[in-house]
Amino acid sequence: MTGLSPSDPLSAGQLLARGVCRHLSGHDFATVEEFTPERGKRVDVMALGPRGEIWVIECKSSRVDFTSDRKWGGYLEWCDRYFWAVDVDFPTELLPDDTGLIIADAYNAELIRMGPEEKLPPARRKALTLRFARQAARRLQGLRDPRV
Amino acid sequence: MTGLSPSDPLSAGQLLARGVCRHLSGHDFATVEEFTPERGKRVDVMALGPRGEIWVIECKSSRVDFTSDRKWGGYLEWCDRYFWAVDVDFPTELLPDDTGLIIADAYNAELIRMGPEEKLPPARRKALTLRFARQAARRLQGLRDPRV
Repeated sequence: MTGLSPSDPLSAGQLLARGVCRHLSGHDFATVEEFTPERGKRVDVMALGPRGEIWVIECKSSRVDFTSDRKWGGYLEWCDRYFWAVDVDFPTELLPDDTGLIIADAYNAELIRMGPEEKLPPARRKALTLRFARQAARRLQGLRDPRV
Repeated sequence: MTGLSPSDPLSAGQLLARGVCRHLSGHDFATVEEFTPERGKRVDVMALGPRGEIWVIECKSSRVDFTSDRKWGGYLEWCDRYFWAVDVDFPTELLPDDTGLIIADAYNAELIRMGPEEKLPPARRKALTLRFARQAARRLQGLRDPRV
């Protein structure tokens, strides 16, 4: 996993994720990039809202990056709302209508279409929130105290 | 709030907190230092266990640091278990028997006495876990992307 330390260079998708996270921060959503909702799954951005809302955002830097992704359907069950984040040149007609859409660059983003809400079952929300909390805290500790 | 960036110098209490967090990390507890459970309250270390256990650890670097603290009783209601962390020279007979005890230095720590368990009500646990998650993620984002 690269790009998780401030000094690592970021890939095109990670730059989009940074813009997405900045934007969501302004809407009071806390974010973790490259979050692992369960072993073997990794989502580009998981966002946690003020009332515990859980959003997943997958960042696609190109058409081929999207068309080669066979896993995204499996992420729907890990969030209340699902979004794509793409840059302004991306052919958005490729994206399914019933998903959210965010147009992003490395510096900011704009929410174009809200993803439909499909509320998580309470037990999964509880487990995901705990997992998010522990992943965020461990990474924070890793940056503050690299000896851990 | 100083000491939250890797380059800030740490106070005596923050050095103890670092040792505590390293130790707890080895026991699969994720930690956030200087956590705010509610506005106006700040605990030195909040730790979140693999099953959602919430521990609070207050770090005392000297006798006067302990005797001048009139707030700690108010922290009991924010955790399942409460601990003091002090260095090896601290007069531990000052500390109440019915609290946990951790002996720490800047590099590590040892759990000497488990704090008695007083389980949080479910609604408060849920709110605290969410708050921990969002504080940890925001600080992580602040370190990874200082522009936020």
